[in-house]
Amino acid sequence: MTRMEQYLDEHRGRFEEELCQLLRIPSISADPGCSQDIRRAAQWVADRLGRLGLAAEIIETSGHPLIYAESEPVEAAPTALVYGHYDVQPPDPLDRWISPPFEPQIRDGSIYARGATDDKGQMLTHILSVEAWRATQERLPLNLRFIIEGEEEVGSSALATFLDEHGDRLACDCVVISDGAQFGPGQPAITYGLRGIAYYELRLQGPRRDLHSGSFGGTVTNPANALTRMLAALSDAEGRIQIPGFYDDVVPLSGEERRRLAELPFDEDRFYRQLGVSGGMGEAGYTVLERRWARPTYDINGLTAGYQGDGAKTVIPASAAAKFSFRLVPHQDPEKISRGLEAFLRSLCPPGIQMELVVHHGSPATVVSLDSPYIQAAARAIEAAFGRPPVYTREGGSIPIVTAFHHKLKADTLLLGWGQDDDNAHAPNEKLCLADFHRGIRASARLWEELGRLGKDSRQASRPPAS
Amino acid sequence: MTRMEQYLDEHRGRFEEELCQLLRIPSISADPGCSQDIRRAAQWVADRLGRLGLAAEIIETSGHPLIYAESEPVEAAPTALVYGHYDVQPPDPLDRWISPPFEPQIRDGSIYARGATDDKGQMLTHILSVEAWRATQERLPLNLRFIIEGEEEVGSSALATFLDEHGDRLACDCVVISDGAQFGPGQPAITYGLRGIAYYELRLQGPRRDLHSGSFGGTVTNPANALTRMLAALSDAEGRIQIPGFYDDVVPLSGEERRRLAELPFDEDRFYRQLGVSGGMGEAGYTVLERRWARPTYDINGLTAGYQGDGAKTVIPASAAAKFSFRLVPHQDPEKISRGLEAFLRSLCPPGIQMELVVHHGSPATVVSLDSPYIQAAARAIEAAFGRPPVYTREGGSIPIVTAFHHKLKADTLLLGWGQDDDNAHAPNEKLCLADFHRGIRASARLWEELGRLGKDSRQASRPPAS
Repeated sequence: MTRMEQYLDEHRGRFEEELCQLLRIPSISADPGCSQDIRRAAQWVADRLGRLGLAAEIIETSGHPLIYAESEPVEAAPTALVYGHYDVQPPDPLDRWISPPFEPQIRDGSIYARGATDDKGQMLTHILSVEAWRATQERLPLNLRFIIEGEEEVGSSALATFLDEHGDRLACDCVVISDGAQFGPGQPAITYGLRGIAYYELRLQGPRRDLHSGSFGGTVTNPANALTRMLAALSDAEGRIQIPGFYDDVVPLSGEERRRLAELPFDEDRFYRQLGVSGGMGEAGYTVLERRWARPTYDINGLTAGYQGDGAKTVIPASAAAKFSFRLVPHQDPEKISRGLEAFLRSLCPPGIQMELVVHHGSPATVVSLDSPYIQAAARAIEAAFGRPPVYTREGGSIPIVTAFHHKLKADTLLLGWGQDDDNAHAPNEKLCLADFHRGIRASARLWEELGRLGKDSRQASRPPAS
Repeated sequence: MTRMEQYLDEHRGRFEEELCQLLRIPSISADPGCSQDIRRAAQWVADRLGRLGLAAEIIETSGHPLIYAESEPVEAAPTALVYGHYDVQPPDPLDRWISPPFEPQIRDGSIYARGATDDKGQMLTHILSVEAWRATQERLPLNLRFIIEGEEEVGSSALATFLDEHGDRLACDCVVISDGAQFGPGQPAITYGLRGIAYYELRLQGPRRDLHSGSFGGTVTNPANALTRMLAALSDAEGRIQIPGFYDDVVPLSGEERRRLAELPFDEDRFYRQLGVSGGMGEAGYTVLERRWARPTYDINGLTAGYQGDGAKTVIPASAAAKFSFRLVPHQDPEKISRGLEAFLRSLCPPGIQMELVVHHGSPATVVSLDSPYIQAAARAIEAAFGRPPVYTREGGSIPIVTAFHHKLKADTLLLGWGQDDDNAHAPNEKLCLADFHRGIRASARLWEELGRLGKDSRQASRPPAS
């Protein structure tokens, strides 16, 4: 790997410049005003893959386009499918960004921009590693496929449809995904489990117009009051969800897994201090890591009602709305959760209020077996690039499409996050440490070698149990 | 009054044009961007009063300016102080207005604009009635003073200070205020009681930045979840407020007053149907009118947290905030309420959340004795102009400065609302019926005559009991 390492060193500056190019495109999938930028980002990725000598194409969908690319066949070698996404979260609140979200800026060894860690920077490591192979080696050591989508932040529906209809084009032995965080600075990790998600919007309509709160207070049901009461009733004080049957299908944590999680170095005080809070809260009887990775949660993601400007307005708002979501664990079913939620909310809805529950998206949780030879190959690649073996973790977040890969392709998913927990994914001042970016490229290049060595036989042995 | 009636008839069109002039000025007191418009509105009112031959001046304050004007002395006649306000509520939500809020439009006999009923249109009736006296009579039959403010919608603090420091300039026998509604179309009313108000903003700060709800859900306290729990805890399901001691000082409704309120024609079904709701809710054991006029309430006026745009964002917001207010009745003390509220909220505030409670404004309730000769004079004036005697009502809203007049000037307040309940005060499509506008001018002109006949002696007999 010496020539390759030298190549990676020599091209650091240009790799960073390429990342900046992609970060400058405001490809916000949730914003209908960004459709041209979404297309520009898709084209950028397709062009970049094409320049590697891969057969790359933009696939039109009913939503944002997909990019698919594949390398020339390599006999008797396994097939890895790289997944990533070129779309990003909305950048608001804008006034909290130190530098503008779509004008990347390097400060203290990190690059700051929306999408730096989630997922443009991490996705790019697997593209640039192929460049290094092309430049320094005779041929790729395995069959590589790329599927890059533009709707990860809004539910991946186009890719899910493609997977249903053309899943054979994505057939592979393992799926490689870098869209998460290491366990901590200097401590890489392989993530073997993800929580699922069920995301909702609750809209309450009261009187047909805003009313003067003096003239009408005490007579009509105030939708904002009703909203707080209904949302508050969804959990108890420590966050345990009160929807009847919500916990029925939850797989309890095994003693073995709890022991392994407890062995991970984790400083609770430091964790809270970094977030700027004196402490937190959560389900009694579980550690912070268990609550974070392997227990369901309920979080309100947005509230809106009435007057939100400066000063005071004495109004009973005509309507009130909330966005909120549950994180799910094996084997909770989002559709069953939706049914239970709707029935529970209807039972709580007071007279004089019309209630609408919008189901935004849902995806079950997934867990991969640690016995997988692909996971072991990834561990060797990571150790070579980061100088330290990875720890094995679960992740509180959701990558809904991972669950679909897991179930449809019967392939192991390798979740190799190059980011850090404090990268501000989904928040102002998102960043990616440049040292992690370059180590990610190195680990990716090494991963192709390790996977190539496994040959074609490994897959059958590693079929994961359904989760 | 024949010449005067003729004059009022002949000048209807111009009176409406003058109202339109004033309505075109967006004098939104809560909006710091409207300071120039506030000043234009104040100047308009001062000029208008000056053209009546009154000594009119603009009084600078630390906030928005006051306008003061007085007529030449009339011996052995009482003094009436006309109060009104030239400021208006913010017009949002703007997309709900049929015609723009500051471009008055006449439709179906009503004039639509922000401020039409609250309070520019009603205030103007008392100015135009003076014009009619000047044009048709030798002299005014009483001493008139005007005090017009620009901060009614944001707490009247400049006028309260003026009243403290220069209350002698406002000395009077009665205060005349038209800033409310009749009992219904064709049924005028005199309002003898107003609820008080205590208005707050609760701000909760959690983690120092927005967090990914997958990566951090279950560990940190979500400020939006905390907000819904704390706000929900402020009342029970029927709206009874749960702050310890909140009802301690509430004066119970007397049997006599409950009997009178029950005699008022009030169609509950029609009331709710007009608001577009199937029904309402409120304290058990009280009628709708009692809950509306004479019982305390709790209403959330605004909620804001996290992501409020299209689509879904999986975020734990760093902060969450609410504006909310209580309507108060005799003898609740806003400052005592604030202390009880803050202690209660602090007891509810969960770990990991920093809480700030902002007191926006507060004012106690007030009730005037129905034995007042000024109230009886107003009743005769209203009957003459509207062709029907008024009923006696209380009002759920608050005019905090009325309480200050009541306590500082020891003068009876005559609350003579010319508007209607469906005038959309504080809401989109605010309006004033033009027939009510002209009847209001007529009643005002007649009121000056009726008050003049009382002479100077009536005041001592009518001193109201402290409320």
